[in-house]
Amino acid sequence: MTKPAFAAVDWGTSSFRLWLMDEAGGVLAERRSGEGMTSAAKTGFSPVLQFHLQAVEAPADLPVIVCGMAGARQGWIEAGYVDVPALLPAVLSGAVKVPGESRAVHILPGLAQRLADAPDVMRGEETQLLGALDGTAETGDQVVCMPGTHSKWVRVNGESVSGFSTYMTGELFEVISKRSVLSHSLADAEPFAGNRQAFTEAVRTAFEAPQRLTNQLFTVRSGMLLAGLMPTDAAARLSGILIGIEIAGSLSSSSSRPGKIRLVASGRLAELYEGAFMALSLPFSTIDADEAVRAGLAAAARQILPLHP
Amino acid sequence: MTKPAFAAVDWGTSSFRLWLMDEAGGVLAERRSGEGMTSAAKTGFSPVLQFHLQAVEAPADLPVIVCGMAGARQGWIEAGYVDVPALLPAVLSGAVKVPGESRAVHILPGLAQRLADAPDVMRGEETQLLGALDGTAETGDQVVCMPGTHSKWVRVNGESVSGFSTYMTGELFEVISKRSVLSHSLADAEPFAGNRQAFTEAVRTAFEAPQRLTNQLFTVRSGMLLAGLMPTDAAARLSGILIGIEIAGSLSSSSSRPGKIRLVASGRLAELYEGAFMALSLPFSTIDADEAVRAGLAAAARQILPLHP
Repeated sequence: MTKPAFAAVDWGTSSFRLWLMDEAGGVLAERRSGEGMTSAAKTGFSPVLQFHLQAVEAPADLPVIVCGMAGARQGWIEAGYVDVPALLPAVLSGAVKVPGESRAVHILPGLAQRLADAPDVMRGEETQLLGALDGTAETGDQVVCMPGTHSKWVRVNGESVSGFSTYMTGELFEVISKRSVLSHSLADAEPFAGNRQAFTEAVRTAFEAPQRLTNQLFTVRSGMLLAGLMPTDAAARLSGILIGIEIAGSLSSSSSRPGKIRLVASGRLAELYEGAFMALSLPFSTIDADEAVRAGLAAAARQILPLHP
Repeated sequence: MTKPAFAAVDWGTSSFRLWLMDEAGGVLAERRSGEGMTSAAKTGFSPVLQFHLQAVEAPADLPVIVCGMAGARQGWIEAGYVDVPALLPAVLSGAVKVPGESRAVHILPGLAQRLADAPDVMRGEETQLLGALDGTAETGDQVVCMPGTHSKWVRVNGESVSGFSTYMTGELFEVISKRSVLSHSLADAEPFAGNRQAFTEAVRTAFEAPQRLTNQLFTVRSGMLLAGLMPTDAAARLSGILIGIEIAGSLSSSSSRPGKIRLVASGRLAELYEGAFMALSLPFSTIDADEAVRAGLAAAARQILPLHP
């Protein structure tokens, strides 16, 4: 087995992912678990990390680079924010070393947008963004869409981030589908198991009449009561409505429509957003989110760690 | 004590209200509890009703008129829907008598709007509406706003309902404030305890840029992290955002702006919506919601019960 050079960790609110990486940025082993910040804040961050490092037989002195909510105030150790506008590589110089650990553990800071009328924060996506844009030859203003629990839309030019906006899309899907009256209509249906048409129609409806969002949400319920809407279609509709208004909001805030949206996503989320962009005839290109965050963490490792002693 | 003529019950999803009424429509006694449909579906509807009737010393043969979710499919006994467009008094003729009860218990049906692109339902508000419009000399198209867990905006002309839309405002406030990341920012703050300015600004922001709703919601969190937004102001902002988009959606669906919005609300909800209409310079007049539902139930009693044998 190739010798591991460092461990890369994306530590979100509700998920933990660790990759054992070699010097060339190759993946030697992977761990995924639900021990995100919320869970680890109760059980302790250090034991969670040690457990997964042992599981992949990491050497005792292997350094670790962490991005995400582990650096939040409620996280392991606060890693602060770099304020936008900012150059992405500046994030790397703001890394904080966790004290008292037997090995070197570095946590990357997030980005903050300190505008009175549009305050915003991100943690983890800045690293993903660094990896996603790494090595691209693109210049000029670009719009990057990073969907998730809290979707981020970022305006970049080269390696410079001029601003960004967070949309609570994923979390709203979660609380509305599980905790509201719509839970009766959705059961445990997956958001994309249903009729593709139900999804694309909902995307268009919300995009065209976003002011009616909280009414459109209710039609998921009334559509089931009166028109026999199926649970999977109900889930597809809820998902489409929330993604439709996210895209409407994001494009309204740009001074001009982006030439091509750069979508940073993997798996089901990538499918959903690709479907939504196609439904709205918006040009886009997809960058794999997992690869992007690993590339970003590898870029951080190259700068922070003495890999070539 | 004046002899009671009937008991009026507004049985919602999460609340139960009973009034002991005399023949002239006067209130002799009142009961309020949290034993709404959700709770009563588990414990049984009949025992809940009997308990509260005994508490106000109702005679054993006193008839009862019920509106609301007790008539839903998951309720006590399904009371069906009257389809719009409909004349409000038609609701009364659709009342269903609960079988097997020692006393006469009549449940009023709801209203259904069977439109493929705007399916909608209401239960309880039709009775409130009947009471609210009872005896008004107003003619011409009117818009009635009935805020709550599921706010209803109804287009009426005289006693005729042409259509309506439901907005999930109250329920979204509940699930977002209690179950999302915003719960950290709001604590147990009441929606109108905060700064009036935080509320009115949020109403205007959401009304003017409704397509950015799911981003505006996140700024409640980021505003606290970066700009020291207080929990009570955060609650006022969340409330203002959700009411602002409700009003934007409602007015966009009317072919023309209503001359004056008729607000049917009581207490804190009335304050909130009055504040929102003022923030947007929209003319309105307020009708007390409690009085309206009692008046509607009394109108039903006059038609259904042999009050003057």
